[in-house]
Amino acid sequence: MFNIDMNSDLGESYGQYVIGNDAEVLKYVTSVNVACGFHAGDPHVMEKTVEKAFENNVAVGAHPGFPDLRGFGRRPMTISPEEARVYVIYQISALNGFIKAAGGKLQHVKPHGAFYNMAAIDYKIARAIAEAVYDVDSDLILMGLADGELVKAGKEVGLKTASEVFADRTYTSEGILVSRKEEGAVIHDKHQAASQILNIIQNGKVKAIDGTEVEIEADSICVHGDNYEAVELVKHLRTTLLDADVTIRSLTRKK
Amino acid sequence: MFNIDMNSDLGESYGQYVIGNDAEVLKYVTSVNVACGFHAGDPHVMEKTVEKAFENNVAVGAHPGFPDLRGFGRRPMTISPEEARVYVIYQISALNGFIKAAGGKLQHVKPHGAFYNMAAIDYKIARAIAEAVYDVDSDLILMGLADGELVKAGKEVGLKTASEVFADRTYTSEGILVSRKEEGAVIHDKHQAASQILNIIQNGKVKAIDGTEVEIEADSICVHGDNYEAVELVKHLRTTLLDADVTIRSLTRKK
Amino acid sequence: MFNIDMNSDLGESYGQYVIGNDAEVLKYVTSVNVACGFHAGDPHVMEKTVEKAFENNVAVGAHPGFPDLRGFGRRPMTISPEEARVYVIYQISALNGFIKAAGGKLQHVKPHGAFYNMAAIDYKIARAIAEAVYDVDSDLILMGLADGELVKAGKEVGLKTASEVFADRTYTSEGILVSRKEEGAVIHDKHQAASQILNIIQNGKVKAIDGTEVEIEADSICVHGDNYEAVELVKHLRTTLLDADVTIRSLTRKK
Amino acid sequence: MFNIDMNSDLGESYGQYVIGNDAEVLKYVTSVNVACGFHAGDPHVMEKTVEKAFENNVAVGAHPGFPDLRGFGRRPMTISPEEARVYVIYQISALNGFIKAAGGKLQHVKPHGAFYNMAAIDYKIARAIAEAVYDVDSDLILMGLADGELVKAGKEVGLKTASEVFADRTYTSEGILVSRKEEGAVIHDKHQAASQILNIIQNGKVKAIDGTEVEIEADSICVHGDNYEAVELVKHLRTTLLDADVTIRSLTRKK
Repeated sequence: MFNIDMNSDLGESYGQYVIGNDAEVLKYVTSVNVACGFHAGDPHVMEKTVEKAFENNVAVGAHPGFPDLRGFGRRPMTISPEEARVYVIYQISALNGFIKAAGGKLQHVKPHGAFYNMAAIDYKIARAIAEAVYDVDSDLILMGLADGELVKAGKEVGLKTASEVFADRTYTSEGILVSRKEEGAVIHDKHQAASQILNIIQNGKVKAIDGTEVEIEADSICVHGDNYEAVELVKHLRTTLLDADVTIRSLTRKK
Repeated sequence: MFNIDMNSDLGESYGQYVIGNDAEVLKYVTSVNVACGFHAGDPHVMEKTVEKAFENNVAVGAHPGFPDLRGFGRRPMTISPEEARVYVIYQISALNGFIKAAGGKLQHVKPHGAFYNMAAIDYKIARAIAEAVYDVDSDLILMGLADGELVKAGKEVGLKTASEVFADRTYTSEGILVSRKEEGAVIHDKHQAASQILNIIQNGKVKAIDGTEVEIEADSICVHGDNYEAVELVKHLRTTLLDADVTIRSLTRKK
Repeated sequence: MFNIDMNSDLGESYGQYVIGNDAEVLKYVTSVNVACGFHAGDPHVMEKTVEKAFENNVAVGAHPGFPDLRGFGRRPMTISPEEARVYVIYQISALNGFIKAAGGKLQHVKPHGAFYNMAAIDYKIARAIAEAVYDVDSDLILMGLADGELVKAGKEVGLKTASEVFADRTYTSEGILVSRKEEGAVIHDKHQAASQILNIIQNGKVKAIDGTEVEIEADSICVHGDNYEAVELVKHLRTTLLDADVTIRSLTRKK
Repeated sequence: MFNIDMNSDLGESYGQYVIGNDAEVLKYVTSVNVACGFHAGDPHVMEKTVEKAFENNVAVGAHPGFPDLRGFGRRPMTISPEEARVYVIYQISALNGFIKAAGGKLQHVKPHGAFYNMAAIDYKIARAIAEAVYDVDSDLILMGLADGELVKAGKEVGLKTASEVFADRTYTSEGILVSRKEEGAVIHDKHQAASQILNIIQNGKVKAIDGTEVEIEADSICVHGDNYEAVELVKHLRTTLLDADVTIRSLTRKK
């Protein structure tokens, strides 16, 4: 018997600016990563997003990002481990206020965009993030790229961790994502995407872009809902997984 | 036997911008109001300020302000009660993260600048703030202008409250502060300031600018440390109060 | 023979956040007011918006607002005349850079949202704005609410001015807009809206909500394009005006 | 007969936050680089700084930086050439408004901090900056690190350029600055600093940290005024240069 979490980024609107299709996404996923006001989101959006997630019985995680609303947190910035630490403490705690006000509990923390990518390969940044999360609440689950530095650092400091995998991205023979700049980085066929996920969940393996098979851990699948194809992929993944007797549930109900 | 808290605003630096004389202020006060990143302060400054406060055995409160770094939170803005609510939840929770990471406890919440002034006279805003604080942590103390709407709303929702008084400002016969735009609003003589405070603490009364005496409650005195005169006033207040057997201690150790 | 300008707000997107239907609006209007990065817009959006406007042979104005992206410049803020001055100089000059780079010329300046409303009734703010515009370029046209303080101040300092009128809003017997908080403030019937505009243009009069007729000047009609009804109204206004032999053209081609 | 410009960064205060010693610096330099509101500075500070500079007969340049007030523009960010372009157009044009309002003329453009460093080594970014400056005003002088990509790109697009040299920094045998992370990067002795500058001006050569002599062009010396040592160095440089019959004057009066 296998089980898996499906997570998606949510609450990325800002003031009058609406982005994403949050109501639709909440129908399919078991966990959401809520923007905390640095790269997206604002206090009002955060409160509404947390309420909607709980109404839909979806677990809530914090999605701290770089302080770059203008660039949506997608532009690499050179920050120090100390900056990584305080940015994480600030953002996850701010979100936590809305979660407490709603009577719920924060499930996990997953860095956003360029911060996520940096945390996957830069150990010092990863370690600073992990310690920050631990210092705020040692029960939180730290989510990061499967086999990346963040998951490693999380385990070291004593946190529960969640390894994230992708249905629609290809992997190298080292088990990391093929860069979007390379050809073949994105899987456009939903059947191929679903097969990749099923192989990861059932066999703990992914077929790399060079044909070799690589071991990979998976606790959560990253999905999107901001366009028709993305929603179609999520639905197909759900059907495929349920047909294969994989239980789709959030991280906290998993253990 | 009387006792009183002395509070001051702290942690208002931002990035490379240093403001205030925090190390000096921490020697004299029993509580500090720490900026939370909207009108002043940043995550790094917040972490350092909380640590320094605890090292000096000073109680820490949150100092939420308007989202207006450019105007230092001193410019009136028209916000809705819902905006007041979410701005408070966001800011006090963000600060709370640093307090938890430092192993301490948040003592109180006091709005900053134009937000403080609005909360003193606008009941709907005051009520929204009080409910926000209660929803995050019902043990927090809500500090506001003595006899203002915020203290009233705090009591209504079931929060402990702290009434703040001023040594260097004159009062009207209705017990509210004379506007800074009026003549005689500021008391420049430290002896007169100390006498006013002593009268407030010992007799629960303040002599208004028109000569009448008005009843007033006092749990905390607002002091500053950003210039020589301010520090001289604080020192003189301390000496006067201690000579009169008034115990100077933070809000939480008071009860 | 009569003529009139039709203006609309444009370029209000920000980073990844897209708002409005700029391509559609550009088909119908003769002038646009481009957000300058304080309440909406960013440098990239500004460059693209200016280019698109010129491609569509539409005149470009600056749309300076309060520094409040979070509130889209719609929240009243207390600013000093000096702040009004420097905010206007900064924003219109920043936009002017993109206009010069595109080989064009800035036509007018119209404050946005809460800044527009303040400039219509607060003479000191209006005067500061007018002087700021004059100091940057005395050939610019200052646009404001018909009969408001901004148009008055603009004339005083020696600027050309443009009086703006509304098709879908009712007027009081003093010739100012009925507040949106009052019943009957908005005209939902496009035929009634078009009649009001035609009466304003041909007779210089508007029928106030109390039935009296008020004199009103009109150089430009404010229209929107952010939803179906708004676009339908613009189209109907155009047809009605053209059928009545009113020439629809920008402010600068008018004289 | 030799001549040289001395430039310094100015106008870096923000709202209530005061930084630097602008009045003192203006006594010694011939050109200033004024922050434009992205990494430092605000519209009010910009207006005052421009006025003070002109009162002191000092030439004014724009100092565009990354949109990172929190990090003072010193943190490397990955931006596209298109982003570099529009950030430059926006910032220099905004400053230009205050210069026009003051009746003066913008002399030069010098990127700030991490943007400066990026422009010195990344040709695509340098080229985008150069084109942006040219498109706004082809008479502007583009200032960058001597021998860097920015000066090269400026010449290519047809701009006048200014090569900047440093008195208190050592050079490698390739003619670029020794990184601050390396030992020996900073020259602490004012006599040694003055000798280095004199050698650069009179002989067009700098002695590199490995003892070799490298050719170098110099139009302007970067100086600071934010502490006692910095001011002492500027004074000593002035005396040394004047004693050696070097004329100290701004870029525009030089030709």
